[in-house]
Amino acid sequence: MTVTTPAGFRSAGIAVGLKSTGKPDLALVVNDGPTPASAVVFTSNRAQANPILWSRKVVQDGGAARAVILNSGGANCFTGDFGYDTTRLTAEAVAAALTAAGDATDAEEILVCSTGLIGTGDQAFRDKVVGGVPGLFAQLSATDTTAPAAILTTDSVEKTAVHAGAGWSIGAMAKGAGMLAPGLATMLVVITTDALLDGEALDRALRGATAPSFDRLDSDGCMSTNDQVTLLASGASGVTPDEAEFAAALAGVCDSLAAQLQADAEGASHDIDIEVRGAASTADAVDVGRSVARNNLFKAAIFGNDPNWGRVLAAIGTTDAAFDPYQVDVSFNGVRLCHAGAPDRPVTDCDLTPRRTHVEIELFAGEYTATIRTNDLTHDYVHENSAYSS
Amino acid sequence: MTVTTPAGFRSAGIAVGLKSTGKPDLALVVNDGPTPASAVVFTSNRAQANPILWSRKVVQDGGAARAVILNSGGANCFTGDFGYDTTRLTAEAVAAALTAAGDATDAEEILVCSTGLIGTGDQAFRDKVVGGVPGLFAQLSATDTTAPAAILTTDSVEKTAVHAGAGWSIGAMAKGAGMLAPGLATMLVVITTDALLDGEALDRALRGATAPSFDRLDSDGCMSTNDQVTLLASGASGVTPDEAEFAAALAGVCDSLAAQLQADAEGASHDIDIEVRGAASTADAVDVGRSVARNNLFKAAIFGNDPNWGRVLAAIGTTDAAFDPYQVDVSFNGVRLCHAGAPDRPVTDCDLTPRRTHVEIELFAGEYTATIRTNDLTHDYVHENSAYSS
Repeated sequence: MTVTTPAGFRSAGIAVGLKSTGKPDLALVVNDGPTPASAVVFTSNRAQANPILWSRKVVQDGGAARAVILNSGGANCFTGDFGYDTTRLTAEAVAAALTAAGDATDAEEILVCSTGLIGTGDQAFRDKVVGGVPGLFAQLSATDTTAPAAILTTDSVEKTAVHAGAGWSIGAMAKGAGMLAPGLATMLVVITTDALLDGEALDRALRGATAPSFDRLDSDGCMSTNDQVTLLASGASGVTPDEAEFAAALAGVCDSLAAQLQADAEGASHDIDIEVRGAASTADAVDVGRSVARNNLFKAAIFGNDPNWGRVLAAIGTTDAAFDPYQVDVSFNGVRLCHAGAPDRPVTDCDLTPRRTHVEIELFAGEYTATIRTNDLTHDYVHENSAYSS
Repeated sequence: MTVTTPAGFRSAGIAVGLKSTGKPDLALVVNDGPTPASAVVFTSNRAQANPILWSRKVVQDGGAARAVILNSGGANCFTGDFGYDTTRLTAEAVAAALTAAGDATDAEEILVCSTGLIGTGDQAFRDKVVGGVPGLFAQLSATDTTAPAAILTTDSVEKTAVHAGAGWSIGAMAKGAGMLAPGLATMLVVITTDALLDGEALDRALRGATAPSFDRLDSDGCMSTNDQVTLLASGASGVTPDEAEFAAALAGVCDSLAAQLQADAEGASHDIDIEVRGAASTADAVDVGRSVARNNLFKAAIFGNDPNWGRVLAAIGTTDAAFDPYQVDVSFNGVRLCHAGAPDRPVTDCDLTPRRTHVEIELFAGEYTATIRTNDLTHDYVHENSAYSS
């Protein structure tokens, strides 16, 4: 039980043949209310898949989403009008099934998510997804455990998180490796809660929770066309938690999922937390951390267990952040190797063999801090992304 | 003969023990005039090595550079005041040797370039570089062929280019892989000419020549702390070429060197030219091309001979350039695989096995075009940059 941990939700995951492996590839999460509300954040990539274009429309129309249907095995991105019609037909099929079950629903209340190879979305894809909807409904259950597996692509493990509040709860599932800059493919997240909250409160909490978690996960600097984080509230608990308490719980769930995404990033052998301290602003801290997270020379050095602080300084020197490059301290796993822009201790004092790697950059330019999560650049990353078309 | 192809120049390259291999690692190019003039462009990284800080000062003081001394085997970057003093002492040693030979010269007329591991610049480094100056002078020759090898680091071949004008010529040597975004390490370039031109004319020509060549070479997105392109004119030919003719010749030399740098990029198995057409401005074309050149998923796909146009669209969607992502055409090696943002032809129609790879992106947004040179992301790149500390 993950997305069905909160009351008022049913889910299902089935195989419809989108994945050549025959593994589950279509999932559905239904919000049974009684007071459905929702909030969604999308990829900021201008190249957006058809399900993103559709789901944005659902959100813009302002109504609460009643369900979200997700497929792996095909991104339905850059598949033209035909692909958009496939997304619309998918939403219509879900709405029709809900309506037939006595719960009158419009297609414009159904969110759609897809993940897989860009350019995949032909007639066979449509037939499998739209044709799979009745099978999904047959499986829908309030104690379902099959949905998280059905949204995975190259993920090696299911990613889930739950939070138990006082009389209310949060459940979540995720796939992928990153949001503003996902790893191999799309990050899809569905979070459910039975807390009694309206869409505006959900939206505030969701944006507050994604900014320091998914937005600061930058596995390989590549931004997906299909990222979507969906938060659905049923109100079934009848409990309206304190907004700050709910926000903190949601932030914890998102942080847990972000850490799980980082830990399962394709081909990675190190999970690297780049902590930037003493920045003049949060934006500066994020910029500095991201410049390091996206530097291939730094990432390859970490793979080689080389605490190459020179590559850190070369990376941060490309930013516009306020700091003096010749006053910076850089530490690896707690060992300060660079002090005031000059060598401090021998690099051999530092052990980078553990998977978890902590890089601390002290800018001495202010009071702000941010941590960017990333991974190293490995042979396995190159192998998986050259041999596997995504 | 490369930098000594033009009249009025002497050069030398010797081994002083900076490289553990014992290969040549210290080079000198002297401009004997009679009317020395110079122009220099530097890395735009804010994290700048001591030789960059020094050479900027030489340029700012406005005098023509009389010589450039270059070392491999140590970047002298982030080595503090001691490292800066080493650079100053190096320039002073060169100036003293020139003065002793009857050519009164100030240290502020001597450019210094270094390349190698950041953080390297201790007493032993200083002793070898400063102590090597007499040996360099003993080797100086107007028919020298040893300088180009002495500036190499992980380069596999010397990079040189010459141009023969009507009564004047250009010679050049280079090392590294990139300028605004060099590959493994620094790009250093020295270009000489015996054309009779003043510093302002040289500066205009140099900036015009580097913008479409080195500035559009983006092997791995990592910007160096030590990049420097130096143009020295002796006036020894007595010929003042037409400025446009000289600019075109210089652009040709820079373009040749940029192509050589791309071809020798660390670990690369494909040389990729990303040609962006139909952009609303040159800046847009460069932004779009660079976004693709820096996309690890795209680069890994090319390594796998996979013409993954979806990754191209996902990359260009992250830019602010003016275009409609759903109207774009993408071709690989002349085969259009994406038309109007949708699949056009099977990817199997396209053969990516040749090393030279041409990606054409038609934005349909204007009349401007730019080509970015890059390389693929390979196992050898990861190996060389994880096993070799630079």
